[in-house]
Amino acid sequence: MSKNVNMIGAGLVGSLLSIYLAKKGYKVNIYERRPDMRTAKISAGKSINLALSDRGWRGLEGVGIADEIRKIAIPMYGRFIHHKDSSTAFQPYGKDNQAIYSVSRAEINMRLMDLAEQKGGVEIHFNERCTNINRQTLEAQFINEETQKTSSSKSDLIFGSDGAFAASRLNMQLSSDRFEYNQHYISAGYKELIIPPGKDGAFLIEKNALHIWPRGSFMMIALPNMDGNFTCTLFLPFEGEKSFANLKTREQVKKFFDEEFPDAVPLMPTLLDDFMNNPTSSLVTVKCFPWTFDNKIGLIGDAAHAIVPFFGQGMSCGFEDCVVMNELIEKHKEDWNRIMPEYETLRKPDGDAIADLAIANFIEMRDKTADPKFLLQKKIEARFNSKYPDKWIPLYSMVTYSPHIRYSTAFKRRATPRSHHAKNYGKA
Amino acid sequence: MSKNVNMIGAGLVGSLLSIYLAKKGYKVNIYERRPDMRTAKISAGKSINLALSDRGWRGLEGVGIADEIRKIAIPMYGRFIHHKDSSTAFQPYGKDNQAIYSVSRAEINMRLMDLAEQKGGVEIHFNERCTNINRQTLEAQFINEETQKTSSSKSDLIFGSDGAFAASRLNMQLSSDRFEYNQHYISAGYKELIIPPGKDGAFLIEKNALHIWPRGSFMMIALPNMDGNFTCTLFLPFEGEKSFANLKTREQVKKFFDEEFPDAVPLMPTLLDDFMNNPTSSLVTVKCFPWTFDNKIGLIGDAAHAIVPFFGQGMSCGFEDCVVMNELIEKHKEDWNRIMPEYETLRKPDGDAIADLAIANFIEMRDKTADPKFLLQKKIEARFNSKYPDKWIPLYSMVTYSPHIRYSTAFKRRATPRSHHAKNYGKA
Repeated sequence: MSKNVNMIGAGLVGSLLSIYLAKKGYKVNIYERRPDMRTAKISAGKSINLALSDRGWRGLEGVGIADEIRKIAIPMYGRFIHHKDSSTAFQPYGKDNQAIYSVSRAEINMRLMDLAEQKGGVEIHFNERCTNINRQTLEAQFINEETQKTSSSKSDLIFGSDGAFAASRLNMQLSSDRFEYNQHYISAGYKELIIPPGKDGAFLIEKNALHIWPRGSFMMIALPNMDGNFTCTLFLPFEGEKSFANLKTREQVKKFFDEEFPDAVPLMPTLLDDFMNNPTSSLVTVKCFPWTFDNKIGLIGDAAHAIVPFFGQGMSCGFEDCVVMNELIEKHKEDWNRIMPEYETLRKPDGDAIADLAIANFIEMRDKTADPKFLLQKKIEARFNSKYPDKWIPLYSMVTYSPHIRYSTAFKRRATPRSHHAKNYGKA
Repeated sequence: MSKNVNMIGAGLVGSLLSIYLAKKGYKVNIYERRPDMRTAKISAGKSINLALSDRGWRGLEGVGIADEIRKIAIPMYGRFIHHKDSSTAFQPYGKDNQAIYSVSRAEINMRLMDLAEQKGGVEIHFNERCTNINRQTLEAQFINEETQKTSSSKSDLIFGSDGAFAASRLNMQLSSDRFEYNQHYISAGYKELIIPPGKDGAFLIEKNALHIWPRGSFMMIALPNMDGNFTCTLFLPFEGEKSFANLKTREQVKKFFDEEFPDAVPLMPTLLDDFMNNPTSSLVTVKCFPWTFDNKIGLIGDAAHAIVPFFGQGMSCGFEDCVVMNELIEKHKEDWNRIMPEYETLRKPDGDAIADLAIANFIEMRDKTADPKFLLQKKIEARFNSKYPDKWIPLYSMVTYSPHIRYSTAFKRRATPRSHHAKNYGKA
């Protein structure tokens, strides 16, 4: 039986999958390009905090660390809308106490690494950049980014969990015939900013909400952190009238924020410095197929399906990959010739669905959440759902609170303007 | 002024563009991965002959070699259909003597190389595989496939003309943020076979036609070569009932051909050997953007827009790229800061259009050409067009015989089942 695994990437999904595999008796070596974030002082990087919801919690529960993570997770019970005239509105995400959770990417990743090492069976090698994977021999090659030493390692199975720009996936793209690949960037980029805590770590805006400043073609959002600050993210087109291209000087930035986010500016004392210093990042969707090769190499998480962040499902989707993989290992009794094909057949439609839903949700967040009619619609939906919970579940609830409903099923069942139209006017 | 050009790839488009540039006084170094096909004995490779039509002829006329190539080009005036019951039918491609031409890929490529070297200003370096292009310094790195020696070269401009799997494009993909990239394989592959000449080089089937054996989900085609043989290409799904997967043994192949192509089998004495020995190749469409980088690096031909072969426009489209580039060089008086943006803005929609048309034409060729109704439709179209030539031109004629109509315009003007429907039932 194949018991030695090389995992490319010690991010959220690579670490979690390693724990699952170690619990099944596999010996896992993780090769991570970056230094150990638990000891090295490395920049927090992009997307400081992430949303975690039920599918993600399931992944953590499966390895017994959900309770530990819950201690550092902040529930957000709805959208807190900041209008341009500084008026506000609250839109609950679901019923009762349904929430999504704001968690620190670094915190959760470090705890997963700790757990992986503590449970035994997992060894993490840092600063090791994967330079090649030989499909025939299953030999993976690495170069150490600190020492420049090269090394190689053979294993029975290889997983690529190295993210949206995965070296593992590129290797498969170049060494496979008929590899379907698509990378698409939306026209908007993002920049992270900050609302620091008030006196004694006080949260200066509502703690238990995801804040949105919807402005039509762009928006700012803010998620709470444990220490009282909020990570703000401005999503804005790269080009055009209101765009990053037109925010080159401190004066332009100040004028733009004063006009667009008047209630936020007083809470952002380092706004101008942050804006000038922090990077402007792009937003990519990656779709590819196959996800597995020769039943011995598998892509997982962002390496298989990088998505834009607007449904808050990136991490949860990757964790769900691990849950599915774990279920298939049990179902097929570790027969990887059956696990790998079923994994990609089952998960590919779900990856495609959440990718498309995430792009669609950008429009909802930046545009529709500012519309009173939309708020009314959400209320009607919630009322309908609470009266007839078996008949109909809102799309957001299917995706966020219903891990038993596949993303692809949620995608098919969603109500769209087209389906409304079809209902009203007969079959198109 | 930028006068030194490095061209990656001495294929059809790289060679032709080099001639255009040399005529304008540029010094061009072409780096070609393969050996010199004029001296080395290398396999003819894939797609032995290609279709050439008016857009392609324009490209050759611009450098004065159309007449020379015409001598080795065989006009095909229409589709010669071979039905399963061995009956045949002829469908003219256009009016009067309108034809597409069958030419040998190797012949035309060798003549273009000759011409490039003879006219001066162009030097071709063979066996040089491009390993890296530095966007900042415009330094291109190479490894010689024979000697394993590495070298590098700086220039003012770089063109990537290295085909569907371009190293130049991969380099841009990896070094650029927000590079749009899509590679898609259709479910069918192809295998090349042969109908050899009869006595004294006689053509055993109609010489001046493109032969099609349309069989619904698959087809065989044959194009004439100067020496009397025909290159046959079987296009067949990789998987499924009738598929390459089910043609593993000589017995299976024999049975399949006897059933499907009874009139061709007696003309193919080496069929079984050829089928077992020749590779089964895949069919890719590549779409990407941008095509130019910093106004100093440009992708051209298949490197920018690889398409499937079913409209016979691959070479002609690449040659039209060269014509457009040449026109823009004149229009903008060699100001590459204006040439490059206009090149990609102008040509990208045309590349997308012919890519989509090529995929659509597979269905027409393999399926509809067998249908008597389709033949009738083609006749009505031709009649209508000959009566009202200013009112309406059939899609095939727009693409093949009307270089003044852009591919993207032809795509928009094409009649589709949907547009017929819209005409009949009002706006959808």
